[in-house]
Amino acid sequence: MLAERQSPVRTDNLKAPAPAPIGAADDPFDRLRGLIAHDLDAVNAMIAERMISPVPLIPELAAHLIAGGGKRLRPMLTLACAAMCGYGGKAHVKLATAVEFIHTATLLHDDVVDQSDLRRGRKTANMLWGNQSSILVGDFLFSRAFQLMVEAGSLDVLGVLSNAAAVIAEGEVLQLQTARRIDTTQATYLQVISAKTAALFAAAAQVGAMIAGRNADDANALSDYGMRLGIAFQLIDDLLDYTARETELGKTIGDDFREGKVTLPVLIAVAKSTDQTRAFWRRVIEEGQQSPDDLTQAMDLLAKADAFSETLAYAKAEGEAAKAALARFPDNAYRRALIDIVDFCVQRAY
Amino acid sequence: MLAERQSPVRTDNLKAPAPAPIGAADDPFDRLRGLIAHDLDAVNAMIAERMISPVPLIPELAAHLIAGGGKRLRPMLTLACAAMCGYGGKAHVKLATAVEFIHTATLLHDDVVDQSDLRRGRKTANMLWGNQSSILVGDFLFSRAFQLMVEAGSLDVLGVLSNAAAVIAEGEVLQLQTARRIDTTQATYLQVISAKTAALFAAAAQVGAMIAGRNADDANALSDYGMRLGIAFQLIDDLLDYTARETELGKTIGDDFREGKVTLPVLIAVAKSTDQTRAFWRRVIEEGQQSPDDLTQAMDLLAKADAFSETLAYAKAEGEAAKAALARFPDNAYRRALIDIVDFCVQRAY
Repeated sequence: MLAERQSPVRTDNLKAPAPAPIGAADDPFDRLRGLIAHDLDAVNAMIAERMISPVPLIPELAAHLIAGGGKRLRPMLTLACAAMCGYGGKAHVKLATAVEFIHTATLLHDDVVDQSDLRRGRKTANMLWGNQSSILVGDFLFSRAFQLMVEAGSLDVLGVLSNAAAVIAEGEVLQLQTARRIDTTQATYLQVISAKTAALFAAAAQVGAMIAGRNADDANALSDYGMRLGIAFQLIDDLLDYTARETELGKTIGDDFREGKVTLPVLIAVAKSTDQTRAFWRRVIEEGQQSPDDLTQAMDLLAKADAFSETLAYAKAEGEAAKAALARFPDNAYRRALIDIVDFCVQRAY
Repeated sequence: MLAERQSPVRTDNLKAPAPAPIGAADDPFDRLRGLIAHDLDAVNAMIAERMISPVPLIPELAAHLIAGGGKRLRPMLTLACAAMCGYGGKAHVKLATAVEFIHTATLLHDDVVDQSDLRRGRKTANMLWGNQSSILVGDFLFSRAFQLMVEAGSLDVLGVLSNAAAVIAEGEVLQLQTARRIDTTQATYLQVISAKTAALFAAAAQVGAMIAGRNADDANALSDYGMRLGIAFQLIDDLLDYTARETELGKTIGDDFREGKVTLPVLIAVAKSTDQTRAFWRRVIEEGQQSPDDLTQAMDLLAKADAFSETLAYAKAEGEAAKAALARFPDNAYRRALIDIVDFCVQRAY
């Protein structure tokens, strides 16, 4: 304990990481998980502890989603960034748990808004318990997140995460307004994903630096890292909806297409469309009139427009920018893991 | 400015209050409004300022509800309690705005959960813009509330309001689970309304003392005041659903009955029911099988069971307890107004 207090630099990275599953030894995600295994266990314990409520439906519904195979990517960013910045306290576990609760709350509300029936290969909470419960348990988790942040004790950190929460909601509303509109500009689309997805990645990383007492430049660099990583992550997600193997995706290929979602690949194809192919996109996306063969035709149009390769290139560029934002930090195992995570997120697309 | 700093006691109460509408000179609500008119104007300005967003639907939808004739009762509690405690700063305006935003967010989500079509005599936001927008704009206002609290600068106050937000969500979920169940105990019902309604009244009043730097005993006394007032307020609301004149209610008599809502008057009647009348309540509330004459029969059963007078008596007792909680504070215009507000809330029922 004393040694830990004397040195602001964590030494967890010198310990052997938790054994990786067979065949996953080279998985950068598992390497990061191993590096922060102790903190991640603490986050998982705190998640379980803090979703308890005298109202039994709350932990029941929350556990379905939280225990349902999430990667814990966002809280891992908080933990790894705090560790990279030499944080030696305990508040990062509370903040990482708060970040996961905010994420979970938005997923619960998203699934109601999108009327989704599957997430991570399992029935959604709104399908199992109804929209009403999903809305209210989302509100509960959101409130719990703020309780945890208050306990973490930093008003500055609370400011960053409450700003992120407002931006996420703005992004979701903006997305709702661009729904099924193929005249959405690529800039607006990037604004949507920066807000609805990347803002939480940015805040999750930034508060890791803040809790470690780093200056604004360091905190902003990690915010930039998270923002770029989040954009890359979402673009790859959009791509995988068309190109992934279904077993990897945990949902069905073409879900976004069938729901008429306007994502970057579609906008790239629309931008290069002829009158004839524009009429196709208008029918399948705007009017939602689809026949069973339309996904095949869409895939064909997307490929011909280089929509997949251009989306991938954009995601890669964001990934490189994310890595560049880490340059100001000294090399250590956590920084290497944060770099690996970028490659992992982008390489999911191959 | 200097004079204001020297004296911790506000002198607004010495100024002439804003002119009351003709015929309302004796309305305690208007007296309180006059007393804190300056602060209330500041809250209304801040509400308008902080619901602005680059996403135009957000202020549009929020304005519909916020400008739609709400009494601003909860933010008035924060303002009046802060003033009674001699607060001379500006943060109470931010906190009062945050309280109104939390309230508005819960109304937006409530109306989706209840599938309501009317509130305060106007179409609900979910009817006009859809459930999706109401959910997401609710999330936005909730986040904005936390941003305002961060600006107000007190972690302790943030703790109280984030706890209240979690309790409100728990109360809403509990209410969902007791929906249409006539075997709900009166204790459980009181637990529901304490959480879903009174917790925000309690927090709104309590933070008024906290921001003024009062000790925990004073803050707890105001929390108790708000809790008792909130319970009385909700019980009278439940009563008015059966007994009000429609022009006063802004909604239709018997809405709760038609929606199968289990409120204290119903539970009192159920507790005194015979096999035959219990079958009636089971049919109309639990099974939702109602004919046009059933409201008349329900009113008759409620009157025979003294359900109205017993509910009123309970509300009055809570109101008296609210007033008693103010005894520790020295007599001033604000304390008198806070007492008047209790009477106003209870006397709505006559």
